[in-house]
Amino acid sequence: MFVLINLKAYPCDPVEIAEIAAEVAETTGVRIAIAPQAADIASVAQIGVETWAQHVSPVEHGSHTGSTLAEAVSRAGADGTLLNHSESRLRLADIDAGLRAAERANLETIVCANNPRQIAAAARLDPDSVAVEPPALIGTGTPVSKADPQIVTDSVEAASGVPVLCGAGISTGEDLDAAGKLGAEGVLLASGVAKADDPRSALEALVDPI
Amino acid sequence: MFVLINLKAYPCDPVEIAEIAAEVAETTGVRIAIAPQAADIASVAQIGVETWAQHVSPVEHGSHTGSTLAEAVSRAGADGTLLNHSESRLRLADIDAGLRAAERANLETIVCANNPRQIAAAARLDPDSVAVEPPALIGTGTPVSKADPQIVTDSVEAASGVPVLCGAGISTGEDLDAAGKLGAEGVLLASGVAKADDPRSALEALVDPI
Amino acid sequence: MFVLINLKAYPCDPVEIAEIAAEVAETTGVRIAIAPQAADIASVAQIGVETWAQHVSPVEHGSHTGSTLAEAVSRAGADGTLLNHSESRLRLADIDAGLRAAERANLETIVCANNPRQIAAAARLDPDSVAVEPPALIGTGTPVSKADPQIVTDSVEAASGVPVLCGAGISTGEDLDAAGKLGAEGVLLASGVAKADDPRSALEALVDPI
Amino acid sequence: MFVLINLKAYPCDPVEIAEIAAEVAETTGVRIAIAPQAADIASVAQIGVETWAQHVSPVEHGSHTGSTLAEAVSRAGADGTLLNHSESRLRLADIDAGLRAAERANLETIVCANNPRQIAAAARLDPDSVAVEPPALIGTGTPVSKADPQIVTDSVEAASGVPVLCGAGISTGEDLDAAGKLGAEGVLLASGVAKADDPRSALEALVDPI
Repeated sequence: MFVLINLKAYPCDPVEIAEIAAEVAETTGVRIAIAPQAADIASVAQIGVETWAQHVSPVEHGSHTGSTLAEAVSRAGADGTLLNHSESRLRLADIDAGLRAAERANLETIVCANNPRQIAAAARLDPDSVAVEPPALIGTGTPVSKADPQIVTDSVEAASGVPVLCGAGISTGEDLDAAGKLGAEGVLLASGVAKADDPRSALEALVDPI
Repeated sequence: MFVLINLKAYPCDPVEIAEIAAEVAETTGVRIAIAPQAADIASVAQIGVETWAQHVSPVEHGSHTGSTLAEAVSRAGADGTLLNHSESRLRLADIDAGLRAAERANLETIVCANNPRQIAAAARLDPDSVAVEPPALIGTGTPVSKADPQIVTDSVEAASGVPVLCGAGISTGEDLDAAGKLGAEGVLLASGVAKADDPRSALEALVDPI
Repeated sequence: MFVLINLKAYPCDPVEIAEIAAEVAETTGVRIAIAPQAADIASVAQIGVETWAQHVSPVEHGSHTGSTLAEAVSRAGADGTLLNHSESRLRLADIDAGLRAAERANLETIVCANNPRQIAAAARLDPDSVAVEPPALIGTGTPVSKADPQIVTDSVEAASGVPVLCGAGISTGEDLDAAGKLGAEGVLLASGVAKADDPRSALEALVDPI
Repeated sequence: MFVLINLKAYPCDPVEIAEIAAEVAETTGVRIAIAPQAADIASVAQIGVETWAQHVSPVEHGSHTGSTLAEAVSRAGADGTLLNHSESRLRLADIDAGLRAAERANLETIVCANNPRQIAAAARLDPDSVAVEPPALIGTGTPVSKADPQIVTDSVEAASGVPVLCGAGISTGEDLDAAGKLGAEGVLLASGVAKADDPRSALEALVDPI
């Protein structure tokens, strides 16, 4: 199971979370990555933890002030990028262009989507993985694997071979385990670790069942 | 005169340009800043040059995946931020919210706009400065001070006291000088330095008249 | 006082509301207009009531599939248009371009904004009027004139001569009266009439104090 | 073959084009539809020609000022709607929501996309049809069937059973015929008729081979 911790724009210290994640990954052998804000990628990547961008722009080098170029996040140390997160939804054509931008910069990709139908569509754009996150569950503490397990199994079927992660409401090892049993190859989580009083305990408890 | 070099998403080495800018600023005493992509802010700021973000998101800490938080670019070393560049135009309400976000993070601000009427509007939102960049001239090599000097003088009047920079087509010391004579307190430039064969000569020639 | 009833995308019958508004306007002499969806403008305008668009696109004739051209809403019978409503916020440059588009098509204009600072900015773009609608109050039933009367007086001052309407939470004649006393020259309302069980009584009660 | 004439925001008379289309459809038996601006749907539909919206918003009834509600365009007389035209590109989640909105209002749907990969994605969202329009060819007069016939055949394959239309550069009967031979079940066209000196001759010549 791949555990991707999305730091969003939370008021946490990205370097502290990165250090914890690096140690827990080392100790447990679980694949753990951190997705900080673009401006924090360089300092997070220096820790040695697997580092992801939260988004890249669907553009090539050029006159694109304010964009987040795939090449720039790669140079800063990112290994992969999310695309189309529910808080940063993209046009269909821009998911396609963002994936091609990520490929150019050798970034691994996960395209997020809301439901199995959108997962089916996203999977046809050749991402490395897709992630299903029902918007209604984001930040609730109720994992999709409990609230509506069929969303996960339907997404796995809809993705026809593209690996599926699941997100929204994941916070415990039990949630992670349940997601894996439904066919998910990883989880996206955010507040469960980034806003935890003790991020290390939260992360250790999370990966314990793996 | 303040010289802000916007690196956009150009295929230049931001650290190399930053080093050149730091040296030319040191040698000449001219205020020069570099605005790289968000992911490059940390490495540019480490050089010791004044560093600006190209954009910040109109949000506070929270669930904003893919945003560019003012606090994050500040932590990475940014001293200021552009807002509403013609390649990253913002909603009126978001220019307001972006300015308030920048204030919270102690970032100096420049709001860009297309014409004197929009400059008048932007100036009422309490930015530190405004910058007029007629879209038709961006990247042309024809400076606004030559193509239509009245746009600059009208913008200075419309800004009623808020300092005005000008951009679009600035590449020579003569352009810089002309802008200053029209009332501008600085210039935004991009390709003139970032895409120059010899960025150092380009920048030295530019600031020579000051 | 000008009373503009924004039908939004409410499940009301726009023609029925238009007929009521036309009769109440006729009977009372109060200026009342209806702003339906673009596709409903023709059928509302046929009733003879003053008809407004909820939005026009910042474009001229050309290849703009899916836009709402000022010329098209004018041809369908619109007399004016809202711009930058909080549910349809526009880029600063597009408010400017939308106003110029409306001028070309001889549409009267009201630019909405959230607070006095944005009202000051909007007023500099040469609209016929501006309207202040604090987003937190929209649809609440608590009028801005009660919740925070200073927002209205500050907006009137910030608009420096451009007429100010106010909206959000207006539903009674008392609210309308209060808005007028604070300096507003009209009100925007929506659910108070469009979602009323008896729209005629709601509208008659509203304009009664005028 | 289905011929859909997108009037965009062209300076043509939509009612005149609608009358011509109705007559040519009647005379030839070819299925011809007109897609005018939302504000023109009512007057076009009154002519009796099949009428399409250029876009509908991905929303239900509610507080959505400035949207184009599927129910409103249906009430005005629309039989179907385009979604995600290259001049009105939508977020993946909004194509999904727009399709569901159209279903609620009994509108037939065509989702546009740029290339076979995006066609594959769009087809998984359950539209009635998809349409491939390579952006580089729009308005050029060079039909996709000539410029790159494989885009059409690849799109037909990618759509796995969902009917495919093709657009961009279609203007003659020969283009229409070529599109049909490549597997397209219809064409989108715009300037070829809407901007023709003699729209009737242009349309008659177009449908002649069918």
